[in-house]
Amino acid sequence: MTKKEKKSRAKAVNAKGFRDHFHPYLKIRDNVLGVISETYELYGFEKLETPAVETLEALGKFLPDIDRPNEGVFAWKDETTDWLALRYDLTAPLARSFSQHKNDLTMPYKRYSYGPVWRNEKPGPDRFRQFYQCDADVVGSTSFLADAEMCMMVFDVLEKLGFSSSEFCTRISNRKILSGLIENTIGEKAKSKLFDVEGSIFRAIDKLDRLGEEGVRQLLGKGRKDQSGDFTKGTNLSESQIDEILEFLNISDIDTHTAMKKMESLIKNSSVGLEGIEELKRITEILLNNGYPDTYFKIDPSVVRGLGYYTGSVFETEFVEKNSSLGSMGSISGGGRYDNLVSRFTGQIVPATGVSLGVDRIIMNLQNKGNKERETFLPVVVTVMDKNFIDFYSKIAFELRKNGIGADLYLGNPKDFGKQLKYADSRKASYAVVAGSEEIGKNIVQIKDLNLGKNLSKNIQSNEKWKEQPAQFPVKIEDLIKTMSELIRK
Amino acid sequence: MTKKEKKSRAKAVNAKGFRDHFHPYLKIRDNVLGVISETYELYGFEKLETPAVETLEALGKFLPDIDRPNEGVFAWKDETTDWLALRYDLTAPLARSFSQHKNDLTMPYKRYSYGPVWRNEKPGPDRFRQFYQCDADVVGSTSFLADAEMCMMVFDVLEKLGFSSSEFCTRISNRKILSGLIENTIGEKAKSKLFDVEGSIFRAIDKLDRLGEEGVRQLLGKGRKDQSGDFTKGTNLSESQIDEILEFLNISDIDTHTAMKKMESLIKNSSVGLEGIEELKRITEILLNNGYPDTYFKIDPSVVRGLGYYTGSVFETEFVEKNSSLGSMGSISGGGRYDNLVSRFTGQIVPATGVSLGVDRIIMNLQNKGNKERETFLPVVVTVMDKNFIDFYSKIAFELRKNGIGADLYLGNPKDFGKQLKYADSRKASYAVVAGSEEIGKNIVQIKDLNLGKNLSKNIQSNEKWKEQPAQFPVKIEDLIKTMSELIRK
Repeated sequence: MTKKEKKSRAKAVNAKGFRDHFHPYLKIRDNVLGVISETYELYGFEKLETPAVETLEALGKFLPDIDRPNEGVFAWKDETTDWLALRYDLTAPLARSFSQHKNDLTMPYKRYSYGPVWRNEKPGPDRFRQFYQCDADVVGSTSFLADAEMCMMVFDVLEKLGFSSSEFCTRISNRKILSGLIENTIGEKAKSKLFDVEGSIFRAIDKLDRLGEEGVRQLLGKGRKDQSGDFTKGTNLSESQIDEILEFLNISDIDTHTAMKKMESLIKNSSVGLEGIEELKRITEILLNNGYPDTYFKIDPSVVRGLGYYTGSVFETEFVEKNSSLGSMGSISGGGRYDNLVSRFTGQIVPATGVSLGVDRIIMNLQNKGNKERETFLPVVVTVMDKNFIDFYSKIAFELRKNGIGADLYLGNPKDFGKQLKYADSRKASYAVVAGSEEIGKNIVQIKDLNLGKNLSKNIQSNEKWKEQPAQFPVKIEDLIKTMSELIRK
Repeated sequence: MTKKEKKSRAKAVNAKGFRDHFHPYLKIRDNVLGVISETYELYGFEKLETPAVETLEALGKFLPDIDRPNEGVFAWKDETTDWLALRYDLTAPLARSFSQHKNDLTMPYKRYSYGPVWRNEKPGPDRFRQFYQCDADVVGSTSFLADAEMCMMVFDVLEKLGFSSSEFCTRISNRKILSGLIENTIGEKAKSKLFDVEGSIFRAIDKLDRLGEEGVRQLLGKGRKDQSGDFTKGTNLSESQIDEILEFLNISDIDTHTAMKKMESLIKNSSVGLEGIEELKRITEILLNNGYPDTYFKIDPSVVRGLGYYTGSVFETEFVEKNSSLGSMGSISGGGRYDNLVSRFTGQIVPATGVSLGVDRIIMNLQNKGNKERETFLPVVVTVMDKNFIDFYSKIAFELRKNGIGADLYLGNPKDFGKQLKYADSRKASYAVVAGSEEIGKNIVQIKDLNLGKNLSKNIQSNEKWKEQPAQFPVKIEDLIKTMSELIRK
């Protein structure tokens, strides 16, 4: 090692756009993941875990923005053969895994998965390059029931996490309805190149949230110049065509029944459009039939979901900001029917539908609600008052743990006893066990109530109270487990 | 899209060396991870999650084989600035994270982490490039108690998972003892370049399992030619020096007390060696004092652990093959003290010790023991006998789930009813709920006991028995939840 190497220290920083998670965040996440997994399993979904790394070929071009095939993905060339990449979602790996193992799987295949996904995007203050997804999908079912159950699972999860019906809303639509409208609006003439026009319209509509109606109008028309001066080519629809599409998108703010009627009148007799309306109707019927209140969801034709692969039902759940007439706090769940994704591998069309829950966003909202993990973490810190009795302290910690009571034996330098109590405080321990040679000689240990001690010193009560609730009291060693169990259970 | 592109299907295969995991493997793993996390928390460890991706600089050169700095790691150049890499273990990210956040952490910092790590190695039949690790580390403690607790946690986890003391054994040593021996054996003359000689001896000894005594003898001497003809340079020790080292390594097969005595006589008065023996002695005392039987562990100076960063205690747990006089089934846990890893970032020496549990290997051994997850997975499949009653079936599934009973509503094409029962069988469901218009008219549903049905058809019993335990029986709709709850609880 040269002197120069010795001197240059490695920088202790996360890679840009990545972050560490600590307690109690991870406790909350484990809880949320537990609720989601439990719900998915109640609906009959089995867990699947695919690896973080896939061949770039398997991930294919189904990236968030279909205009930039391989951007957005961390990829590298393997020494020997393949281009490898980190998965950017859990759906592309599902399509690969299903196609690979389909002979061993029961159809319809119902699986759930959770884990990190990676996006090679410019990191920002609230934009990370690794985040959690938690998906459930049914492969091999054309039934609208499958789509309805996706929405039901989201409702169940949010209910179990303590969100009320006024706090979230699922917007539901069906791509076929919009296709029907386009078929009608653009007419026979444009049908030969219908696919491209449709894709372009879908992408424009998906930007409604961000650009507003005027922005979408420009994108559907001659094009749009953004603030930086960049120009996006438009779809070149006529004003009347644009009006009709925008009228359609505005259907969202009325009740379900009227919305259905209005959509029917706009798509006229397009068969694909009618199919979409029928599917949408049956999904909402199932939701209402199972007792989910109609405040949980609404018909909203402006939901198209950015991903190119959706073919039918689409749904998106958002937290609704209170006191702001349904203003959105960002989508926390989305999904829909994608009947063509598996065919990339198998050559056969395999119907599929799925939903993804954004765990990080859900936790952010739980934290905003003030739903914090209980502050205490460690039941007991066993202090080391006298180095000669280390075997004794270790045995006490051992016995506590054996009885299911979390016990942290102080492992720092035991010289400064005050430091040990500070340690116990900052670990948010409830109790400390303290014993010197005197106590051990008398066959006792002292239990120090750290919460009480803190409260007492913070807010000095009468002397009587102090005596009644001493922050420290002795127990016989043989009674320690019993006493501590009772204290912890309180 | 050109015709050619349309035709070429993506290959549905995992990237080489990667694999998918399914039910029930993942259920077993969740259970194992639960036991490990619970144990780590009982000992006062807090969870930490670092991202999969780190800068290559942060991972540094602490790779499994220190002779090949960046090999073994998946790394790529980020578009903008850094070289990024997938973590190859959980210890290097801990050192980075601790150094980055140390002002916010309580010292000693006790954290546990689990998750996948990645190795860019040639994949083999049982050699994967992504696998799970589950680590606990204490940063900022010099205490031998910390090392002892690492061993205790491994014992506790294996006990809780149902392994008996005859099935595993932890071999414990301390690198300082071997350093003392080398100091003695090589003598004053070689002291200036002591570090390199020591490293070379450690690496040779680490190969004892694989190459046997003769192979190690060659590596310690003039060098070794392997079967392929490749030559590894030797350490060039004299025969008597090699004899002494090998005598030392053979200490393992005697009792702890005799082993200690013998080591003492071999290292003579090397102060670093005596320090190592003292630490080793105190660790074993703590283990015995807490009642862990001495069959759980043994002193074995041949344990050095390949990683270059260990500086004191080292330990390795293996499953012991029965009826083969302690033959090994590979290490399932290992760890030790590494006092210099954090200094790469901070410039200061920070004492640390840790342990890693190999979850995949533990599960392999659980499966070998025949400890399989119960075969049934799904309590109930709700079949769809008549498409007109889909709302009814959906409501039944809804009510079952609401009462905590997993219910899978059949989502495939309902035309072929036999297929639905086959589906329920292959999902390993316990019961099917069946109802046609006739039953619904009478306000009942049929419950089909799928396990019983299978057993009855497999092994036809007397007619009497058949009548007593019918594989199918009707219940009133309002009694379904109650009946099913009782059946499931049985």
